Amino acid sequence: MTSGQNPTLPSVLGGPSVILVQPQMGENIGACARAMLNCGLTDLRLVRPRDGWPNEKARASASGADLVIDNVRLYDSTAEAVADLEVVFATTVRTRDMIQRFVTPRVAAEEMRARYSAGQRVGVLFGPERTGLVNDDLTLAQTLITVPLNPSFASLNLAQAVLLIGYEWFQTGDLPPDRFVHFGATRPATKGELVNFFEHLEGALDRTGFFTSPEKRPSMVRTLRNALERMEMTEQEVRTFHGVIAALTGKRKGDA
Amino acid sequence: MTSGQNPTLPSVLGGPSVILVQPQMGENIGACARAMLNCGLTDLRLVRPRDGWPNEKARASASGADLVIDNVRLYDSTAEAVADLEVVFATTVRTRDMIQRFVTPRVAAEEMRARYSAGQRVGVLFGPERTGLVNDDLTLAQTLITVPLNPSFASLNLAQAVLLIGYEWFQTGDLPPDRFVHFGATRPATKGELVNFFEHLEGALDRTGFFTSPEKRPSMVRTLRNALERMEMTEQEVRTFHGVIAALTGKRKGDA
Repeated sequence: MTSGQNPTLPSVLGGPSVILVQPQMGENIGACARAMLNCGLTDLRLVRPRDGWPNEKARASASGADLVIDNVRLYDSTAEAVADLEVVFATTVRTRDMIQRFVTPRVAAEEMRARYSAGQRVGVLFGPERTGLVNDDLTLAQTLITVPLNPSFASLNLAQAVLLIGYEWFQTGDLPPDRFVHFGATRPATKGELVNFFEHLEGALDRTGFFTSPEKRPSMVRTLRNALERMEMTEQEVRTFHGVIAALTGKRKGDA
Repeated sequence: MTSGQNPTLPSVLGGPSVILVQPQMGENIGACARAMLNCGLTDLRLVRPRDGWPNEKARASASGADLVIDNVRLYDSTAEAVADLEVVFATTVRTRDMIQRFVTPRVAAEEMRARYSAGQRVGVLFGPERTGLVNDDLTLAQTLITVPLNPSFASLNLAQAVLLIGYEWFQTGDLPPDRFVHFGATRPATKGELVNFFEHLEGALDRTGFFTSPEKRPSMVRTLRNALERMEMTEQEVRTFHGVIAALTGKRKGDA
């Protein structure tokens, strides 16, 4: 380490380290910091940023990810930047003329989580905007990450690459359910409430002659009930639709 | 549809449609187009973009995703922009005071893929940069997408939100293996080649007195072989390391 605003910061605070090798534009560094904090990552390391450090454009484009910007550490070489790490991944858009192991961001995230949970220090290398990492930097990594994307248009900007790795990392953590219904102050209707509603509707339809014959009524009822079941109505919505039927049949509040 | 440069384009060309509602900055629209094409998505629809359309800043920041930019279609309202779609998802950063179903991008991608593969037309709504979608727009969607991210810093920029949805969509497609070793012109060593190499090494070590006693030799050999096995050497590397041993023991090419 050649400098750094907070040399006493623990080596890994909140997940794997992100190491940007020779990043060019400050805006990109800031966007990376924002993407990192989106994903709970806070340890950003820069190897020879083109425009030096600190960089006010980076801070501006970090959109409030000051926690990351304030703790950036600077290094003279990639080897120094990863010297304290036990597990290093590197991102690349293409296979090189080297024998190396490749994984997707999803597999990388699972492997990083397992290593990190076992107390190992983990980092991911990202190369300069246009050229990517040089082979000597890739050699510092156990495993390369390649993102499955449209092969005819696969080039991501730096912050988007950081986001995808960070996003996959975050998805391996403790998360809320991956699908749920937001009910607010109400709750799903019970089957009893639903059947009561169906009978209200069918009774109203009986009086209008909607069911063309007694023989057809059972199958028509099933059609209606199947469709209405799919709404998965709340208790509140059942009451609303009781009111809809009453309104459509001309009954007003207080009528018998 | 109120205008559009290519009204004869099929409604869905390459995956779900992306509908940006009242996007503000042209740069963001362009970055969305780039992220879409990264993920194989090509149908971009704009509802009342603030700065009109076409927008040269959008084209510049699309970084070559002209295929998407050239086929953008404009709409006066969100309802018109989704009128031909059968399945609509919407992105939101927070639950509202409405009863709605929420899923993660991963679940959404699986559901979109299943619907799309069944021939249904699918789209995803994204709101304006700062404010997000209004409730009336959310009501056009069957399901809302919420991205699991750092809850204390969850705000994504527009293109990053599009990228995450597109990325998950792409991951549900036909993909190459999610982990592999790139071998180039060589191949993994056979076990026979490895054992031959181990014996070369152990024979060289025998001559140096490395194995301190005959009793310890078997366990020391196992230690070496276990470590070297983990290298998963290629045939080429085995030959290289034969040369390393020869060099270390002072043998030169041509020696007996």
